[in-house]
Amino acid sequence: MRALGELLKAVDGEYAIKTAQELVRIPSENPPGREKDVTEYILRELKRLKFDDIKISEAEPDRPNIIAKLHGRLGTRTLLLNGHMDVVPAGSGWTVPPYGGVIRDGRLWGRGACDMKGGLAAILAVAKAYRDAALQPEGNILFTFVVDEEMGGKKGTGFLADRGLLKADMAIVAEPSNFRLSVSEGGVVWIKLIIHGKQAHTINAKAAINPIEKASKVIQELQRLNEKLQKLRHPKFGSPVLSVNVIRGGDKINIVPAQCVLQADLRLPPGIGISVKEAQAYIEQSLKELTIQDSLLRVEMEFSVVAYPFEQPEDTQIVELLKSATKAVLGHEAEWWHRDTGAILPKEDSDVFHLWTKCRIPSVYFGPGEVELAHAVDESIRIEEIVQAAKIFTLTAFMAVGG
Amino acid sequence: MRALGELLKAVDGEYAIKTAQELVRIPSENPPGREKDVTEYILRELKRLKFDDIKISEAEPDRPNIIAKLHGRLGTRTLLLNGHMDVVPAGSGWTVPPYGGVIRDGRLWGRGACDMKGGLAAILAVAKAYRDAALQPEGNILFTFVVDEEMGGKKGTGFLADRGLLKADMAIVAEPSNFRLSVSEGGVVWIKLIIHGKQAHTINAKAAINPIEKASKVIQELQRLNEKLQKLRHPKFGSPVLSVNVIRGGDKINIVPAQCVLQADLRLPPGIGISVKEAQAYIEQSLKELTIQDSLLRVEMEFSVVAYPFEQPEDTQIVELLKSATKAVLGHEAEWWHRDTGAILPKEDSDVFHLWTKCRIPSVYFGPGEVELAHAVDESIRIEEIVQAAKIFTLTAFMAVGG
Repeated sequence: MRALGELLKAVDGEYAIKTAQELVRIPSENPPGREKDVTEYILRELKRLKFDDIKISEAEPDRPNIIAKLHGRLGTRTLLLNGHMDVVPAGSGWTVPPYGGVIRDGRLWGRGACDMKGGLAAILAVAKAYRDAALQPEGNILFTFVVDEEMGGKKGTGFLADRGLLKADMAIVAEPSNFRLSVSEGGVVWIKLIIHGKQAHTINAKAAINPIEKASKVIQELQRLNEKLQKLRHPKFGSPVLSVNVIRGGDKINIVPAQCVLQADLRLPPGIGISVKEAQAYIEQSLKELTIQDSLLRVEMEFSVVAYPFEQPEDTQIVELLKSATKAVLGHEAEWWHRDTGAILPKEDSDVFHLWTKCRIPSVYFGPGEVELAHAVDESIRIEEIVQAAKIFTLTAFMAVGG
Repeated sequence: MRALGELLKAVDGEYAIKTAQELVRIPSENPPGREKDVTEYILRELKRLKFDDIKISEAEPDRPNIIAKLHGRLGTRTLLLNGHMDVVPAGSGWTVPPYGGVIRDGRLWGRGACDMKGGLAAILAVAKAYRDAALQPEGNILFTFVVDEEMGGKKGTGFLADRGLLKADMAIVAEPSNFRLSVSEGGVVWIKLIIHGKQAHTINAKAAINPIEKASKVIQELQRLNEKLQKLRHPKFGSPVLSVNVIRGGDKINIVPAQCVLQADLRLPPGIGISVKEAQAYIEQSLKELTIQDSLLRVEMEFSVVAYPFEQPEDTQIVELLKSATKAVLGHEAEWWHRDTGAILPKEDSDVFHLWTKCRIPSVYFGPGEVELAHAVDESIRIEEIVQAAKIFTLTAFMAVGG
């Protein structure tokens, strides 16, 4: 236990806070995807920490992902610590400078403070703790600093996963989760239905095909489908939801319009026995049957899978280790957080999605920061949480790969 | 017949064309309602023509209507000649200057050329013909030059009618009609339905009330009403039409919106045994019953009567006189034109509406110009039609009130 004591003593809270502050001061908005300055900052930091195995891999120019490996004595097991470098655009309406890195009232303020430069700093603090304690772990720690998470991660974690660059036995994705645990996610499919009619003046309405009237049938059919889907149920994620949330048709009150557009949002829990593909086919089939009943109904359908549902077991080793470490550092158990039940997320596939579905690495979405503040105006993070995260991650690493 | 010969000889075609051209060169757009320069031009012209009974009456400052009376020898009967001085805004996209008054290819080009400065000039030419022929008619000719027709005429003909200033036995409203006759008009009611729901994220859809789903029920109910209304039928104007032509609901695909707005267009022929009020009550009642069946449906209704339906007999004297005069001048019968069947008009109450429904003056919508060009870019009128109109109106006047 002497090694653990040395390691925990070496967790440098001030370093973690200062690093988070410096990272907030470097804009890395995505879109458009300008992570490069953050990449360079982290590369300098990794070199200062004497990493000798650093790989750069990019899906497109100027959007480099970093893979840095802290080699273990035996190297039999590997823990992956993942963080994304991009932030959503600051937007307007801020009462603090979004890239000022102001620390006030115990909080670090700015775009990305919470999502997730606090988490990035906590990960870097793990590396520094091992270096400062002059400890080499038994297993490896793989650090990945990635781009593009805010747009679905296809050029970030997804890209590294696709290229087979990620080998690990477990992973932490240090996203803001209020220190809650998430390993599975619901799916999101956005559906656009364009209903084609035939335009005419009201006075020639008999020659028209009114797409708004046709849309009313489609809406009611989708409502029936929603009721059927409700019968499927995940004990934690609940039932699917299919909801028509946007409708637009016509712009002149005296003209029967040529088309009416519906947008529907489908939420699909994982593990309920229906895949995204099957749900899509189910909807397509139902609407096709409707067009058979009504030969004047013409519907064009577009399905966009925003996020695929996936389910990991909840009793993996990394979950147990994070639970113990959280209990040790915070004094209470980490709760479960079933994303997409009661939260607006996910908007895109998360990096946990890529790590689990592509690499089968048991991965946990877990980190400092109140998720409610992510993407918000006047985003901030309690600086104490950054330090707590550094401690939890370091302790977890020690338990996972030794010291 | 010598008097008629003198009178027709005195119809000054060049004067009519030149007057139309000069009127086109004076912008009088409505909105905003800047008819005053045209009023001043016409007043100068009437004084030059030695009118000694000219009244000005305005509903609001700087929007004067003119009532000029050519007194007859006996004055027992009165013919009213009506024309509006306002034009719709020119807008953009013209290939000729909209207020240049260019004459080319046998046409006068510009905003208002067709609707209805050509008609105004033809009316003035009637007055000039009587003066130049030194004829005093037996009955009176009342000339009204009015504002505001393009916005419903409440400050123009409607205002004069409301104040009891219009006494006549018959009237011609010299609007562009391709020399077709119109005496009755269909009604137009615009209906706005605001369906109130309860907003929530898709994932909390169970706590939401989806106004788009509720709208689908309302649309289908309106469709049923439309089918019922179809059973009513006017032999010339056909059946009512109720059509939902605009729908707007939501703007975020992941949020069940708070409301959905429908806009429906109701066309109501005259003389089918159902008034605007009754039609409105019928729709209101049906939707109220729907809210009783579905206690979560909340509909707010707004009805705007754009134009009231009205029907005049088609065998009035002024119709017969115009038919004869048209036959004499053009060599063919004037056809009937049932406005609102096959045409986008009326957009507002016409001046015929005001004259008939408020003053019970048998009135005909009849004049030079292709109605398809009214309000259009590159509006124009065949100059020959202006001269023909001057002749038809003069001949009609002679037959109506003598010379």
